[in-house]
Amino acid sequence: MERQRHQGMAKNTSMRWRLPLVCLLWEGAMIVLFGVFVRFGAEADAHWEEEKRDMNLTSDMENDFYFRYPSFQDVHVMIFVGFGFLMTFLKRYGFGAVGFNFLLAAFGIQWALLMQGWFHSFKDGKILIGVENLINADFCVGSVCIAFGAILGKTSPIQLLVMTLFQVTLFSVNEYILLNLLHVKDAGGSMTIHTFGAYFGLTVTRVLYRPNLEQSKDKQGSVYHSDLFAMIGTLYLWMYWPSFNSAISDHGDAQHRSAINTYCSLAACVLTTMAFSSMLQKKGKLDMVHIQNATLAGGVAVGTSAEMMLTPYGSLIVGSISGIVSTVGYVYFTPFLESRLHIQDTCGIHNLHAMPGLIGGIVGAITAAAATEDVYGKEGFIKAFDFTGAYQTRTPSIQGGFQAAGIVVSLLMAFAGGAIVGGILKLPIWGDAAAENCFEDGVYWEVPEDEESDVYHMHNPDKPASP
Amino acid sequence: MERQRHQGMAKNTSMRWRLPLVCLLWEGAMIVLFGVFVRFGAEADAHWEEEKRDMNLTSDMENDFYFRYPSFQDVHVMIFVGFGFLMTFLKRYGFGAVGFNFLLAAFGIQWALLMQGWFHSFKDGKILIGVENLINADFCVGSVCIAFGAILGKTSPIQLLVMTLFQVTLFSVNEYILLNLLHVKDAGGSMTIHTFGAYFGLTVTRVLYRPNLEQSKDKQGSVYHSDLFAMIGTLYLWMYWPSFNSAISDHGDAQHRSAINTYCSLAACVLTTMAFSSMLQKKGKLDMVHIQNATLAGGVAVGTSAEMMLTPYGSLIVGSISGIVSTVGYVYFTPFLESRLHIQDTCGIHNLHAMPGLIGGIVGAITAAAATEDVYGKEGFIKAFDFTGAYQTRTPSIQGGFQAAGIVVSLLMAFAGGAIVGGILKLPIWGDAAAENCFEDGVYWEVPEDEESDVYHMHNPDKPASP
Amino acid sequence: MERQRHQGMAKNTSMRWRLPLVCLLWEGAMIVLFGVFVRFGAEADAHWEEEKRDMNLTSDMENDFYFRYPSFQDVHVMIFVGFGFLMTFLKRYGFGAVGFNFLLAAFGIQWALLMQGWFHSFKDGKILIGVENLINADFCVGSVCIAFGAILGKTSPIQLLVMTLFQVTLFSVNEYILLNLLHVKDAGGSMTIHTFGAYFGLTVTRVLYRPNLEQSKDKQGSVYHSDLFAMIGTLYLWMYWPSFNSAISDHGDAQHRSAINTYCSLAACVLTTMAFSSMLQKKGKLDMVHIQNATLAGGVAVGTSAEMMLTPYGSLIVGSISGIVSTVGYVYFTPFLESRLHIQDTCGIHNLHAMPGLIGGIVGAITAAAATEDVYGKEGFIKAFDFTGAYQTRTPSIQGGFQAAGIVVSLLMAFAGGAIVGGILKLPIWGDAAAENCFEDGVYWEVPEDEESDVYHMHNPDKPASP
Repeated sequence: MERQRHQGMAKNTSMRWRLPLVCLLWEGAMIVLFGVFVRFGAEADAHWEEEKRDMNLTSDMENDFYFRYPSFQDVHVMIFVGFGFLMTFLKRYGFGAVGFNFLLAAFGIQWALLMQGWFHSFKDGKILIGVENLINADFCVGSVCIAFGAILGKTSPIQLLVMTLFQVTLFSVNEYILLNLLHVKDAGGSMTIHTFGAYFGLTVTRVLYRPNLEQSKDKQGSVYHSDLFAMIGTLYLWMYWPSFNSAISDHGDAQHRSAINTYCSLAACVLTTMAFSSMLQKKGKLDMVHIQNATLAGGVAVGTSAEMMLTPYGSLIVGSISGIVSTVGYVYFTPFLESRLHIQDTCGIHNLHAMPGLIGGIVGAITAAAATEDVYGKEGFIKAFDFTGAYQTRTPSIQGGFQAAGIVVSLLMAFAGGAIVGGILKLPIWGDAAAENCFEDGVYWEVPEDEESDVYHMHNPDKPASP
Repeated sequence: MERQRHQGMAKNTSMRWRLPLVCLLWEGAMIVLFGVFVRFGAEADAHWEEEKRDMNLTSDMENDFYFRYPSFQDVHVMIFVGFGFLMTFLKRYGFGAVGFNFLLAAFGIQWALLMQGWFHSFKDGKILIGVENLINADFCVGSVCIAFGAILGKTSPIQLLVMTLFQVTLFSVNEYILLNLLHVKDAGGSMTIHTFGAYFGLTVTRVLYRPNLEQSKDKQGSVYHSDLFAMIGTLYLWMYWPSFNSAISDHGDAQHRSAINTYCSLAACVLTTMAFSSMLQKKGKLDMVHIQNATLAGGVAVGTSAEMMLTPYGSLIVGSISGIVSTVGYVYFTPFLESRLHIQDTCGIHNLHAMPGLIGGIVGAITAAAATEDVYGKEGFIKAFDFTGAYQTRTPSIQGGFQAAGIVVSLLMAFAGGAIVGGILKLPIWGDAAAENCFEDGVYWEVPEDEESDVYHMHNPDKPASP
Repeated sequence: MERQRHQGMAKNTSMRWRLPLVCLLWEGAMIVLFGVFVRFGAEADAHWEEEKRDMNLTSDMENDFYFRYPSFQDVHVMIFVGFGFLMTFLKRYGFGAVGFNFLLAAFGIQWALLMQGWFHSFKDGKILIGVENLINADFCVGSVCIAFGAILGKTSPIQLLVMTLFQVTLFSVNEYILLNLLHVKDAGGSMTIHTFGAYFGLTVTRVLYRPNLEQSKDKQGSVYHSDLFAMIGTLYLWMYWPSFNSAISDHGDAQHRSAINTYCSLAACVLTTMAFSSMLQKKGKLDMVHIQNATLAGGVAVGTSAEMMLTPYGSLIVGSISGIVSTVGYVYFTPFLESRLHIQDTCGIHNLHAMPGLIGGIVGAITAAAATEDVYGKEGFIKAFDFTGAYQTRTPSIQGGFQAAGIVVSLLMAFAGGAIVGGILKLPIWGDAAAENCFEDGVYWEVPEDEESDVYHMHNPDKPASP
């Protein structure tokens, strides 16, 4: 079936046996591992009535479900609709954007429940899960969705599944180092999700560098309606980000505060993004790429500090800066990364997640270092940073140092992990498409024949070229 | 206005007097019936302060609104956006899909509030409603949306309203038999919503069999962007299904558990769907029809058992199987049903709701039969299956038997009801379109003139054919 | 760069310096003002542990966050996706609809937090904010989104920002007069949001009357897929309206009741809209304009009374009437307003917000006037209308009178404010487009070159006309 075509070699992109094999084997493994390890936590178990009595709870409302389920659903929408539709901006890769995001996230949340469960919810040989585990699994997969943005359109679904397997594993290790060993706060994941996910993805795409990608340049743009589909993703990410950053914060004021800070930061970010998008274009016209992406940087950049006493005006400042940095990134850094560093970043995750993630880590370190008992109250101070037990004697400035260390660890994990996983994905067995067929749904999907279809010059390896 | 065209008779599809008449008369009837019967339940009534005192409630949080409203809103999105957009996959029936779904659901929820109210919330001559009634009304209408999927594109809006009137009535009777007479558990509606709704719809479409439907074959497919619109529906159904299955479960652990089981089942279902979609296509390409539909079978298949101690790995198993069954159904059963049994199932509800609904009923029966006090705890066991009062002595195995009986009753109600209602819809007074104008919005909607419009070869009975 | 073209003068629509200047200056001002004034309220502050003890609260659940956050998120979706996508119906103004709505709302919520904060949450020189402030800010911006609907496609982004600045200010003054001075109830904003917002916008568009707008008539319609995008907006507004009307009602029964009343009103509204849409078209075909808009009138029309004991059948009646009024408005009033009164109302906000808003105000006045202790209960009566302190002696009929006065005040504020702001927007410095380039994204956005693009006859002032 392989045939010489053009100057390149037409690759065997058929998924017929490889994809089913991977999906079914892995799902089988999930079933076995869940059977051995995963059980309901106390609040989801039918023994809850006894638990309630033991804990002197007078109301079913005290079940964590009611504190977190609405936020969980918002996060769930961000992962599946938010990321999925944000990536539909490409004129001819909408099925792949939404569909592969769906596939990798559905696998990833299962594997994340296990990996994170072993690290954080393991008791007497069992992983006990509840709504907070579901949120954390979605969070973990969020970092994979980010990395997917860098390689969008250039990889096969199997490569994405392989990447998910490894990235979820590495994410969980990195998260364990940060949260448990360094005792770092990162409820909205500026470091664990965004910095790690983005630099991991950028490293992978660097390793997978395709020198002839300009052969599919005509398919790397958007069309009018694909830009509107992408705005569905943008808006759901933007609107629900307050839920994202507050989803796993402490009950009460911390969740409340996280939502407010994130709301403020995102609002400010929209204005500076619009300002710079217009300013940096010769005729002052706005660019949908910026509106779709840079407006979200404000959510990333308060991921660590949102649950702290960042204050609303602090959030406005952070949001304003991250909108500027992100938009400038799209105009100047992305072309530079591609031409000089050979980093082909389809969605510009460097601008939306990597740089704002670093900002978020730094802002978190500063906010932690600047914390005082006066601002937080005596009890609030201890509760906010969990300065109990072994960490009773930690001071804000030491905490700030550990927060900064968390950024460095996340970067190192991302570079090392990305290099290794990129190397694995480079093996010629995964069925990725040739450069001239990148960004083209027809390779892996049955695509309906529109009247428009002949406009998109797909180089179909199954049909002989017209002479 | 009727004119002989082609080999068939152009039908009078004008809705000008018929549709307004039906809508206005029926809405008038709703107003009268609501005026006579419907009042606020205690938790929505301004007397709530007294109620709180009488019931020794110390917090407004104990109002059922806060336990169920977030789930209600998710279910609401599933009914109107989920089902509505899922059916926009047809290239030229998007207005009908979203718009008629909107119409029938808006009528159906009113009628369902009454029907279900008489059966379940009737006190001193009044139906007392609260948020749980709203959820149940949405659920009931869900079964109509399912049946709509079988006849999508082939019926007039009046036919849909007539079907809704009857189906909501039958649904409520069937639900009463199952929940009250058989004392069956079915919180997510595998039997009452999916099995009943799907076999009802399949029977109706069988009765309405159109031998010449291949005349509109060119309009039965999708175009690129219509497939993306459909994915909006798919994802909202998929994401919010945990809310659907947990919306009316008992407060506390039962809601929590339902959400987790459904989350797990759906995740597994995506992987097996992708696997079989690729495996069953010659070139291994994925088919959007499967991704749009079969990925949801996992939610249907745990509808009965999600609130039971199905366990996360049990959910993965059920989800995996239902994804396979559903995808295989699209590839092999749907063509068979059409060619041999003359069942023209536009959306393939047999694969998405009928078979997974049966699986759900069976899994529920088995899970109930296998329940032990050890697994549920003494109190949890009684609470989970409501083994109180007259049912104090029921054992799990007897409960399993009654659950199985619930499946049979639902099937019988669906076949009998569908046959009768199909017969009524066959009367030549409802203004349905001729076979060559099926799947075409132009029949009932003012359609804007796109540059694309001439591509869709509509046989417009209002314009003379070009000579 | 300005050049004589056709019979008109090509205007300088470049935003390159003007838009960034306005955005950055104003965001800077927000940062300063937030820095001086805005702090976390007690429930979002890290001192909450102490607050809890002082107030004898036993559970974190008593934090207002858990009473209102799910409703807040629904409202948030309505403002950004609901209004944004509802306005994408124009074939070539989708970027402007979603993007400018995004811009003005993101600025507006910041300014509204300040304006409303000064009036309602000011304590010891600081504005203390919590989730209720976020909802109110979104509400306030809702009235700007409504006014945007009247001038959609005819104004520059700077004009929209200027309008937002003034309208938010006037909204807050009007709201203060109604809620605090007149002691009026208006939880869902029939008067403060809809009546005020709509008549404000209609006055602005009257002042900005463009006599040559028929030059862009070809771009004022929809295409097939733009109508589907608009339905996303419609459905999210429709589904989440129960959350809108209940979001800031009192905890407990009032929130519960508001949601039920709104649910009923909206359901009825769909049926009468469909009826009249079909009846008023010669061939009985349904019109997407009506389905997209008039179906929502039922939510507007119970905005004031939803939290009162309107009763479910009362809601059905109000919803039915408003659907009829709104649809009739689209068919007869909108053309009349344009031809006779020179009010060019792009989205028909007169039908969706102005008339239903008036209905809502009137229904609210009547419902308040008809209130009795018998219906509400002694405590419920006082709580529902806040008849405490200075208002202890108010009777229902007096309250009804004040409610009616609230309508009049809102109208006067809208007309006066709209006239002044319209005058300001008429200054020739804001960069609005010439009549022949209205409703065209290409003026302010970089638009991808589709194969379709040449179909839309844009008069691009940057390119010389073909000879």
